[in-house]
Amino acid sequence: MTERMSKMEIYLDNGATTRPFEEAINLMCKVFGQDYGNPSSLHKKGFQAEKYILKSKDIFSKILKVNKKEIYFTSGGTESNNLAILGIANAYKRTGKHIITTAIEHSSVKNTINYLGDNDYEITVLPVDSDGLIDLEQLRRNIRKDTILVSIMHVNNEIGTIMPIEEIGKIIKEKNSETVFHVDAIQSFGKLKIYPKKYNIDILSISGHKFHAPKGIGVIYINDNIKINPIIYGGFQQNGIRSGTENVPGIAAVGYAAERMYDNIDCNVKNLYKLKEHLANRIINEIPDTYVNGIQVDKGAPHILSIRFDKLRGEVLLHSLEEKDIFVSTGSACSSNKPSKTGPLQGIGLSNEEALSTIRFSFCINNTIEELDTCVEELKKIVPVLRKFVRH
Amino acid sequence: MTERMSKMEIYLDNGATTRPFEEAINLMCKVFGQDYGNPSSLHKKGFQAEKYILKSKDIFSKILKVNKKEIYFTSGGTESNNLAILGIANAYKRTGKHIITTAIEHSSVKNTINYLGDNDYEITVLPVDSDGLIDLEQLRRNIRKDTILVSIMHVNNEIGTIMPIEEIGKIIKEKNSETVFHVDAIQSFGKLKIYPKKYNIDILSISGHKFHAPKGIGVIYINDNIKINPIIYGGFQQNGIRSGTENVPGIAAVGYAAERMYDNIDCNVKNLYKLKEHLANRIINEIPDTYVNGIQVDKGAPHILSIRFDKLRGEVLLHSLEEKDIFVSTGSACSSNKPSKTGPLQGIGLSNEEALSTIRFSFCINNTIEELDTCVEELKKIVPVLRKFVRH
Repeated sequence: MTERMSKMEIYLDNGATTRPFEEAINLMCKVFGQDYGNPSSLHKKGFQAEKYILKSKDIFSKILKVNKKEIYFTSGGTESNNLAILGIANAYKRTGKHIITTAIEHSSVKNTINYLGDNDYEITVLPVDSDGLIDLEQLRRNIRKDTILVSIMHVNNEIGTIMPIEEIGKIIKEKNSETVFHVDAIQSFGKLKIYPKKYNIDILSISGHKFHAPKGIGVIYINDNIKINPIIYGGFQQNGIRSGTENVPGIAAVGYAAERMYDNIDCNVKNLYKLKEHLANRIINEIPDTYVNGIQVDKGAPHILSIRFDKLRGEVLLHSLEEKDIFVSTGSACSSNKPSKTGPLQGIGLSNEEALSTIRFSFCINNTIEELDTCVEELKKIVPVLRKFVRH
Repeated sequence: MTERMSKMEIYLDNGATTRPFEEAINLMCKVFGQDYGNPSSLHKKGFQAEKYILKSKDIFSKILKVNKKEIYFTSGGTESNNLAILGIANAYKRTGKHIITTAIEHSSVKNTINYLGDNDYEITVLPVDSDGLIDLEQLRRNIRKDTILVSIMHVNNEIGTIMPIEEIGKIIKEKNSETVFHVDAIQSFGKLKIYPKKYNIDILSISGHKFHAPKGIGVIYINDNIKINPIIYGGFQQNGIRSGTENVPGIAAVGYAAERMYDNIDCNVKNLYKLKEHLANRIINEIPDTYVNGIQVDKGAPHILSIRFDKLRGEVLLHSLEEKDIFVSTGSACSSNKPSKTGPLQGIGLSNEEALSTIRFSFCINNTIEELDTCVEELKKIVPVLRKFVRH
């Protein structure tokens, strides 16, 4: 990464978005400049463009161990989640109208399911414990003959809980083999290994900009054996599942980024855990009245650390760190448009007061121990001052 | 444009997609590299990103003479058309379920409306004459109390007909002031001036990659006085009309491209007509049994020329030109995934045989008279040979 980034900024908000790989951007530029054809065109400018789509499909199918024809491209994670949920609800409405989800889903799942709840579908929302985990027996009990969809995230974006999706998939199919299992893998793809076929996952949502690919591109795996309706109609691109001229440069870049993330996945994950544990240990040990929210540090996702700074407003701390060019998040960026009192932090049993005193640190493979040490030193200066002088 | 393009390729398929402006790509790269924050983030990386969105909204609001808050960004033209049609159908379903459209709409309008037709909405499809124009009195007669939406394209993508949208808007509002008027301006934006407020247009769809902006970015104007439901739910970005992390680099680039197109609009249009007339005249005069489809050359859109080469398959001619690095289209690229026998060419009264012998030449401001002359010389060599030796 550039001098500018490594020396000037400490970006610890990678759960919100990441800086794209330079090589991914260079690839995009090449496609824009040379291979700008419309993949639907019959001439070779079209074929040249289509090649990038085929290559990217190939990359995702190998990483996920699925068939190429089960990979589709969308405009992002939110669209992937919407296509999964609305597409299944529409396709299976004659089979049933019962949907199961959890209390700590991202707003792109929660609000899409809420829309269905307002339109004649019956929704069961499974609560989570203080670690952010659902009760698997409760899940089993709630799956019915008319349960058409179970939508559960892989990694929670605010507290980093990793849901046991393999066990969940097994339970779902044991109880009702017709129930579709959708996994929002937006925070886990690129950090954890995921094998939809092995885990009984029928639909998997992925977002490019969470793993150093550009914004505006998403991916979705859809098991070829299930029915799904499109949510966008048109020129029948992507087998009619997602019409519209393909974002070829974005598709090329997201393939590159995915391949690079998984080429070094074991090493990356080890390094991310090192970063996370280092920061967690230093904050908890060196700054009084600080607590890790949710699941134990080494049991949660490697890149998300949620910490409560008692007697302090998270937003105030965020802005103080910002002045030092250290960038963090309060809750999830995606919910900051409409602050919610029913987010994951409340879901795991925090009071509103505690939720509001929370900071999310989220890492990427380019962060360093030195950056985190700088962050801790700043926190050690800022936190006591804010606690003393700022009224909350 | 680069040497490679101007010397090696003659790209006359700009109706399918255009080569992005280099400056637009450079701007994208800058945003990706430096200002990669999530606009929903509360820190300055977020604000820096948001500035690009505000600037782009400002550009579109000035070009269209509408309010900034009436501009939203989507993933492309297809999504803009879907949001317009499905969003209005859903929001107004208690008022009525009657929708009017024309026989020559793009598949992203036609198939979206057909989906509604299969789901309890009543659709009136207005036929067109041999110029591709609707009968305005027929439109007036068909607008009813329960007509919630009229969706009519500005410029037809295959034959270049310009619909009289100002007159159409007047008729709609005279007959039923509550009826929403949606205009698919995907082929006209950047080439014609459009003023939604003056023309009584409530929703206008725009696609970036048709005017030298990147793929994967669309724009939609939505009159602030009308109701519309989202088609994608989530984090309530863009006032809830279009959730999902904004494609900030794409938004910045589409703003740049739009501004550049309209800065020189009069000059650009004059040049495009020169190109179109030059090519039409030379082909018609120098190659026997060739005919311009649809409306008179100077009455149609400046960048779309549809020509019939009798006794020849368009697809065969396309591939012969391709060998000379001259790129054209048969029908519209967007329909090549699912060849239709009910497209605009049939809509204006052509037989299937005639439709299949058609080539669409579509221009951009970077094409030159020299390129067109090269194209004509090649056509003069190829067409007689193909007519003589290739069985159809």
